[in-house]
Amino acid sequence: MSRLRIGVLGGGQLGRMMALAGTPLDLAFAFYESTPDCPAAGLGPVFGDAQNSSASLDTFIDSADVFTYEFENIPVAWVERIAARKPLYPGVKSLAVSQNRLHEKQLFARLNIPSARYAEIRSEADLREAATTLGLPLVVKTVTMGYDGKGQFLLKDTTQVSAAWAQLGAQAPLIAEEFIHFKRELSMIAVRGQDGSMACYPLTENVHHRGILSHSVAPAPFVDDDIQLAAERHIASIAQDLGHVGALTLEMFETRHGLMANETAPRVHNSGHWTIEGAHCSQFENHVRAVAGLPLGSTTCPQPTAMVNIIGEHPLKADILAERDAHLHFYGKTEREGRKLGHITLRASHHHELQARLQKIAALLPNPMALPVER
Amino acid sequence: MSRLRIGVLGGGQLGRMMALAGTPLDLAFAFYESTPDCPAAGLGPVFGDAQNSSASLDTFIDSADVFTYEFENIPVAWVERIAARKPLYPGVKSLAVSQNRLHEKQLFARLNIPSARYAEIRSEADLREAATTLGLPLVVKTVTMGYDGKGQFLLKDTTQVSAAWAQLGAQAPLIAEEFIHFKRELSMIAVRGQDGSMACYPLTENVHHRGILSHSVAPAPFVDDDIQLAAERHIASIAQDLGHVGALTLEMFETRHGLMANETAPRVHNSGHWTIEGAHCSQFENHVRAVAGLPLGSTTCPQPTAMVNIIGEHPLKADILAERDAHLHFYGKTEREGRKLGHITLRASHHHELQARLQKIAALLPNPMALPVER
Repeated sequence: MSRLRIGVLGGGQLGRMMALAGTPLDLAFAFYESTPDCPAAGLGPVFGDAQNSSASLDTFIDSADVFTYEFENIPVAWVERIAARKPLYPGVKSLAVSQNRLHEKQLFARLNIPSARYAEIRSEADLREAATTLGLPLVVKTVTMGYDGKGQFLLKDTTQVSAAWAQLGAQAPLIAEEFIHFKRELSMIAVRGQDGSMACYPLTENVHHRGILSHSVAPAPFVDDDIQLAAERHIASIAQDLGHVGALTLEMFETRHGLMANETAPRVHNSGHWTIEGAHCSQFENHVRAVAGLPLGSTTCPQPTAMVNIIGEHPLKADILAERDAHLHFYGKTEREGRKLGHITLRASHHHELQARLQKIAALLPNPMALPVER
Repeated sequence: MSRLRIGVLGGGQLGRMMALAGTPLDLAFAFYESTPDCPAAGLGPVFGDAQNSSASLDTFIDSADVFTYEFENIPVAWVERIAARKPLYPGVKSLAVSQNRLHEKQLFARLNIPSARYAEIRSEADLREAATTLGLPLVVKTVTMGYDGKGQFLLKDTTQVSAAWAQLGAQAPLIAEEFIHFKRELSMIAVRGQDGSMACYPLTENVHHRGILSHSVAPAPFVDDDIQLAAERHIASIAQDLGHVGALTLEMFETRHGLMANETAPRVHNSGHWTIEGAHCSQFENHVRAVAGLPLGSTTCPQPTAMVNIIGEHPLKADILAERDAHLHFYGKTEREGRKLGHITLRASHHHELQARLQKIAALLPNPMALPVER
């Protein structure tokens, strides 16, 4: 039996968890990553060199049958080089939209998906005008390569327009978006197969701490069916429009006026790590099933499930595993402030029980979380 | 963070599934196996050569911190060589008992665990006497290295005594056991930690076809609490007596007179593969937790779960994965008659629904199963 090999751009924890999910399906993996001892090392050959030379990329392309990626800040040139020779899922279109904030907002608008109002900013005058038409505060952002709040300016007052332009203008075109007062962040992960079939996980509530995801709870509590269905419609229309294959994440704000789309990620997502134990078929297994052209698995979540990120410093393994039905995932990374080193999954019969168990885990973690902890 | 490496004697599917379960716990693996492209290959270095030389064994011992095994027919000399230098779980005592049918039966007797009556056979005269005292039919077996019905003689009539002795006498001492009329085979898998803590999975019903496990259902239907508790008491007393650490399997017959112990295996077991999706913490994860000195995980099984062996020939992946919540495990082995190539896990809300889903899967498998199939 010949074994299909999936080439993954990146060799971090997402690639590692893809390989762990795909190995039982007799799929093989290869990774393109400049760090040889990356989290995915040991689960397939790691190609790539410090220079990310095109020679090393070609060797990687030779090594596998079909390709995917675990992060979206990939040079489009790489992706085009791969796509010219071998199948790549999700395709170049999905990647391009996620890399350009303006294209993403235009997509939301075109598909009638509610999202914060915005204006394209090519000059200081554009920005001054946007402050009037959209109102204040305004979030001014670079169009490409922004993440975790970098490349942003929160414009609270028209006196700040020159300062904002001075800081970001060199990277114009920029985008200015109205500031959304949201109740919470919700995300939805869906997977689309090569045959166009779709499977959506339940909406997940995400809680951040200092700009990094602290923990997620799924299904998000207090979500009516019509909210879940609206989110499924939004993500399905995006996936179909892009001809997307594989996992797709849609981050949304829940507001007084309903869901507002914030951004997409054309990949498995930190807010879906709970699916490994919490859903019948995980986001990682479903993603590799889609990339390999296999039927999708069930996205049902039988019990409330929480995922807690381990950030910066490892807890004691034995402390975590002594908690009933706590599942530990260490990524094999060295400690560094703000770095995602692993995660913990918890399940419970009810959301209030889950919350109590989250508190207990929080007390065992060295990293501060967005949860009150009594130590 | 230094990573603990577990050395596994054997590199088959059991070693493969141990490594897949242990990797998220940041455990590393090495395997001792003469076939380089064994199922565990790719999940850690494979040591061992065609001659199983002591030099290759020593290199393997150097490579890891703590040791375990995935099959019990290991030369005791290997195990002693390892145990002299590094921790080995389960210990030599667990292994020795499982390798000697007479010692195993003596253990059952000493611990008051019901089991078929037996006699030690050192001569044809002993066998003739056993036929009188134990009654007919008698199962005559070699004491060591028997499995899957090999090295056995079913003595139905006293005229066969000489023939039985002629066939097996050279391997004396033998054991003669009364023939048990059983309703079904049940197995229990338990895990014991280094601190003596125990966790037992629910009793599993096993159905064989042509001497090979065809499928298992857990929790075994129609099992009263007192039966489950009796089995837990039996396996706990065995594990404590042996000072066992890691997974331990007890195969039992259910008879009109209750449970009768048949045999033990000092390891994870085919009848426990359902635990990967069917239990909160799988037999593989719990085994590596025990070997690594970590706390045990929950053995709760929230839904009826079935495991179906794939034997001799692979089904089409897409056929199996198109079945709702069917989980596929291919071991990366080439096809050969009677060879275990993989397994499929199914879950359902009720046992009768599970049975219907088993029938559907049976129809998709090239290998005949112990299930009636309408094709």
